[in-house]
Amino acid sequence: MRCVVIHEGNLEIQERETPNPGPHDVIVAVRGAGINAADLMQRDGHYPAPEGWPVDVPGMELAGVVSAVGERVHEPLLGRRVCAIVGGGAQSTHCLVPSEHLLFVPDHVSWDQAGGFPEAFTTAHDALVTQGQFSAGERVLISGSTGGVGIAAVQIARALGAHVIAVTRTSEHHEALRECGADETVTLDQVGEVGRVDVILELVGAAHLSVAQGLLNPFARVVVIGISGGGSRVDVDLRLLMGTRSTLTGSTLRSRSRQEKGEVADRVSQTLIPRWRTGEVRVPVAQSFALEEVAAAYEYFAQPGKFGKVVLRIDE
Amino acid sequence: MRCVVIHEGNLEIQERETPNPGPHDVIVAVRGAGINAADLMQRDGHYPAPEGWPVDVPGMELAGVVSAVGERVHEPLLGRRVCAIVGGGAQSTHCLVPSEHLLFVPDHVSWDQAGGFPEAFTTAHDALVTQGQFSAGERVLISGSTGGVGIAAVQIARALGAHVIAVTRTSEHHEALRECGADETVTLDQVGEVGRVDVILELVGAAHLSVAQGLLNPFARVVVIGISGGGSRVDVDLRLLMGTRSTLTGSTLRSRSRQEKGEVADRVSQTLIPRWRTGEVRVPVAQSFALEEVAAAYEYFAQPGKFGKVVLRIDE
Repeated sequence: MRCVVIHEGNLEIQERETPNPGPHDVIVAVRGAGINAADLMQRDGHYPAPEGWPVDVPGMELAGVVSAVGERVHEPLLGRRVCAIVGGGAQSTHCLVPSEHLLFVPDHVSWDQAGGFPEAFTTAHDALVTQGQFSAGERVLISGSTGGVGIAAVQIARALGAHVIAVTRTSEHHEALRECGADETVTLDQVGEVGRVDVILELVGAAHLSVAQGLLNPFARVVVIGISGGGSRVDVDLRLLMGTRSTLTGSTLRSRSRQEKGEVADRVSQTLIPRWRTGEVRVPVAQSFALEEVAAAYEYFAQPGKFGKVVLRIDE
Repeated sequence: MRCVVIHEGNLEIQERETPNPGPHDVIVAVRGAGINAADLMQRDGHYPAPEGWPVDVPGMELAGVVSAVGERVHEPLLGRRVCAIVGGGAQSTHCLVPSEHLLFVPDHVSWDQAGGFPEAFTTAHDALVTQGQFSAGERVLISGSTGGVGIAAVQIARALGAHVIAVTRTSEHHEALRECGADETVTLDQVGEVGRVDVILELVGAAHLSVAQGLLNPFARVVVIGISGGGSRVDVDLRLLMGTRSTLTGSTLRSRSRQEKGEVADRVSQTLIPRWRTGEVRVPVAQSFALEEVAAAYEYFAQPGKFGKVVLRIDE
């Protein structure tokens, strides 16, 4: 197989042996693999892959066609169009995936879009619904709404009946966010004026949360899954938490156990795949790059101002 | 009735009409009424009583004998030895209590001890078990362990199978805390050395939590119910919360609905009253004062260095 390899902080293309699937795994011939902030951290030595996953091949999500199955995989998966989150190794022509983590890609969806679906939508769904215990009719504030997870969260929250307030750094993509389902769009400096909220999905960090904590309704839940833009340390007012009986929690997906990731995939499969099929949720792609253009793709990803996923594509 | 009244920041004794119980309420002839930090805040104008409770008669807990019952109270409560948390008005010879909030005081327990039981033990149980989802075998860190709630929490956590680490400002009462069931006792400056913990019961605030957040095990729960000693604003490291998937939550009892307080009382009744009866949990009393000595009692309460509850007593 041909894959991206991190070598002394640089990204190279190398030939490697295609892995053999374990008894419950499959091999996916990758057609699209989204880029995530964690990939850049890993490239720079800050976010090693969890145990059991390739140490130097980045990539936490992929879409493609099942090309081999383990001996104890009894479902007819060979040749199916699938996508999945993985612990690493997705930015490659082939990648090993635990079979119970597979999501089925609807027929009409392009590989660029499919390659950008699993990480963003799984992360957003887990954070909003499982961690945030979000329920219909609640007011949800989503910071960093123009990133992959933010765009997914806006769509999921709206599809599940929230009043969605999307927060961005600039007003550049406000119209696109309203098309995705945001009821309100505001910039960071307007957050103080949006009224009370029940759930905050925090993708930016301190710069947003230091203000947003003043908006908590009783029993509000703040779920921190990203600190990309605003620093990791935030001055939390405990009196606010006590008075509103609110909860601040943080979460990551990557380090979870195989079983737990399977449970997350089941929930996404039940809730989001049908909505993906009907087009109720979709994956805006900012730009796609050939696998060989990976260095340029990471560079593009690191720039602000884009809207949607950045995806590596691998043609047949 | 004779009661404590807050008048322009001072505490006076006044005669008032004894209230009539509502259909589901009782009147308790008070024999003991614990003093809490919230009373001092209320005296100073910072913590008004919730709606429906006396605005100027302090006191959030009491023990005594049921002297009158509402017309729809069918349980034989008249003459029973009871204690309860109330929204206010406990520092009085008589106090109205919703009948479903009553806890039964074991025969051998003195009124001083009984008057200091409900607030501390209800708060500690709710915070540890209901909010903190504490389960047997976990390591529990309790800050501010020499206060009423802290002493209650040490005993409850130990009775329910925790490894209990009690944190205090000085080492003065470490032996007493170990007698209450603390497995380890440390001072604030030693907190960094106690190892990982699953639950933090935060009674002090920023001064403790800023260090203790570094000790979180995976899925740890931090429950903030007091900020008496350390300030309300704490610099929280969101990266720690994400990495450990921990939760920071805050809570108060006083503002809860009548129904919710009834549910809390049911849980205390089932879990703690049997243990109070056998002496497994108990109420250390630092000092008791006659109702007329209320000003001196508040002054004593405000001083550091004591161990256990401060209680107003009302002799028959």
